[in-house]
Amino acid sequence: MLDFIKGKVITVKPDKIVIQTGGIGYSVKIPIRVSRYINRDEETQIFTSLIVKEESIEIYGFLESSERDLFEELIKIAGIGPKMAINILSTYDRETLYKIIDHEDIKSLSKIPGIGKKTAQRILLELRGILPSLQYEKDQKYDDILSALLNLGYKRLEAKEVLDKIYNNEKDEATIIRESLSILAGKDGK
Amino acid sequence: MLDFIKGKVITVKPDKIVIQTGGIGYSVKIPIRVSRYINRDEETQIFTSLIVKEESIEIYGFLESSERDLFEELIKIAGIGPKMAINILSTYDRETLYKIIDHEDIKSLSKIPGIGKKTAQRILLELRGILPSLQYEKDQKYDDILSALLNLGYKRLEAKEVLDKIYNNEKDEATIIRESLSILAGKDGK
Amino acid sequence: MLDFIKGKVITVKPDKIVIQTGGIGYSVKIPIRVSRYINRDEETQIFTSLIVKEESIEIYGFLESSERDLFEELIKIAGIGPKMAINILSTYDRETLYKIIDHEDIKSLSKIPGIGKKTAQRILLELRGILPSLQYEKDQKYDDILSALLNLGYKRLEAKEVLDKIYNNEKDEATIIRESLSILAGKDGK
Amino acid sequence: MLDFIKGKVITVKPDKIVIQTGGIGYSVKIPIRVSRYINRDEETQIFTSLIVKEESIEIYGFLESSERDLFEELIKIAGIGPKMAINILSTYDRETLYKIIDHEDIKSLSKIPGIGKKTAQRILLELRGILPSLQYEKDQKYDDILSALLNLGYKRLEAKEVLDKIYNNEKDEATIIRESLSILAGKDGK
Repeated sequence: MLDFIKGKVITVKPDKIVIQTGGIGYSVKIPIRVSRYINRDEETQIFTSLIVKEESIEIYGFLESSERDLFEELIKIAGIGPKMAINILSTYDRETLYKIIDHEDIKSLSKIPGIGKKTAQRILLELRGILPSLQYEKDQKYDDILSALLNLGYKRLEAKEVLDKIYNNEKDEATIIRESLSILAGKDGK
Repeated sequence: MLDFIKGKVITVKPDKIVIQTGGIGYSVKIPIRVSRYINRDEETQIFTSLIVKEESIEIYGFLESSERDLFEELIKIAGIGPKMAINILSTYDRETLYKIIDHEDIKSLSKIPGIGKKTAQRILLELRGILPSLQYEKDQKYDDILSALLNLGYKRLEAKEVLDKIYNNEKDEATIIRESLSILAGKDGK
Repeated sequence: MLDFIKGKVITVKPDKIVIQTGGIGYSVKIPIRVSRYINRDEETQIFTSLIVKEESIEIYGFLESSERDLFEELIKIAGIGPKMAINILSTYDRETLYKIIDHEDIKSLSKIPGIGKKTAQRILLELRGILPSLQYEKDQKYDDILSALLNLGYKRLEAKEVLDKIYNNEKDEATIIRESLSILAGKDGK
Repeated sequence: MLDFIKGKVITVKPDKIVIQTGGIGYSVKIPIRVSRYINRDEETQIFTSLIVKEESIEIYGFLESSERDLFEELIKIAGIGPKMAINILSTYDRETLYKIIDHEDIKSLSKIPGIGKKTAQRILLELRGILPSLQYEKDQKYDDILSALLNLGYKRLEAKEVLDKIYNNEKDEATIIRESLSILAGKDGK
């Protein structure tokens, strides 16, 4: 629901900022390593994730939408809540985390406060499944269409097989989507 | 609660846009077939439906309020959640869907990802009951008054019977409502 | 949380309006008898009540804050939800409802759609307890202080007894509150 | 989520104000002793706490962020909800409350409406544990870093031990955080 807040930074704490737009000051939780890049009284854009629980509504914020997207993937993993996800991103940035996953570097993962060896192994397993979708398959357009087909309920393998056959960066998005849908609809014997 | 958002489109993905008003960027899920009509950096009005769950608040958006109304009718059908409803509207627009219902075209309905033959039949049944209310009975004013009487708790048959007797497009809305209510209150032996 | 919305009326239906402020159009449910006093394209102030349920957030709106306050009292009565409360206020305005209560006019109460004789009797009983607090005891200041003392947890009888002793419209609110609290704290043997 | 509202005060009641920003009037519950410092039609900044329940969203407001922070600590104590916390802060301001805790003054605590002797003793016990964190350990920067380390999951003793070793007000926040995290990560044998 809430993609970003653009406003004036009012306060900066190691793990929280207050950013104002209109007459409202929003308090936003941030990864500790990010606070040094945010300055009081400056106009800033924070990419946000609205976390709704039965008795709380909180906003988590990031300087890049790709880091916010990674945060939203992390909290889909069973056992990783917003607090643990922000700990992970407080300790390592996105690129470092990819390397840790690629090198199966359990030791670095378990340096994150609150993460023991067993949790580190489970996170490694789950992140391996997610990270490809967070690194561009081919390019942004290909990825956007693939994720739309997955959201429609098609399996990754099925969607990629069709997309790889017809994908060509010259074609516009709408054409590629229409072609994929008609092949996929046909493939399902519908 | 949220009828529309008027703002500048920041990003357009096949199934999602980000639209900004004030300092806030709202992320809005849209039917895939609609994204080709939305352009980045353009001032746009999106008719919205706020979907509140225990652990999420999401916004679904449409270029026409009638399509948003159809979406809100679809999600009242048991077994059809927002995701399935957006799949239906990603595959077919409103007019096509009416034809499919009128011609009891199960084959086309089951082309929608995630919808098998059995679900298609059930949707057909339920949609037949809803669609009349989404196509104008006589005209907008007649429909608005009828839906207000239904919301007050009167049965469709009872309300239509009274409305058909006294309805005349020349009369203003308040008069028609007052007359219907007094007849309906009288008819209930109250 | 949401006391009022000031904005331009975009659409008026018998039981619903859309009012815009900033780039957001809010959809607000209203009593049917009120829609005739609201005109499209006019700047209007609507006094609101935000109704939060597990799977919905809705706004109910009124042209006067006293009618909104009555609505919020009605929905505190067991068995009366927002829909029934808006039916009551769609059928009768505040003054008429007071007369109905004063004259114990069950017949008029049960003319409200969805309200049978038994419910009418129960509403009558409960409304008798509430209405005094909605009609000014003495004046607005007296009522505001009385309701603040009740919110603090003091019984109506206890609070009125103290307030009646020290109340004088010439004194300012803060002084009256301080004097009442010190007497009440003393009376509790604290 | 909601740190403050800056706007024009529309109404002031003993325990509630309405403050407007943009076209929205927000109703905010305040401690009774604070209302005398708030004037109608004046531009005011209210530090807020958004209280989300299954069937309500309410805003509690304070003239100082430190009083709001104390309110948010109080409601973490089992058995103290927002209503009781606002009663406590309606009866005593922050400084007086500190003295009451320091002097273990049960009598004053139980003067708060709704608080008997037993609850007073329990509150005393719990507040003793919280108050140090609300009074500056050394200075604002030291406190912000300490609370960030606690939020990351480190124990207070462990975090304070490391922070006391390396803390020096000349160093900037980012450096102190980086140094503490590397020592803490090392200390955990990670």
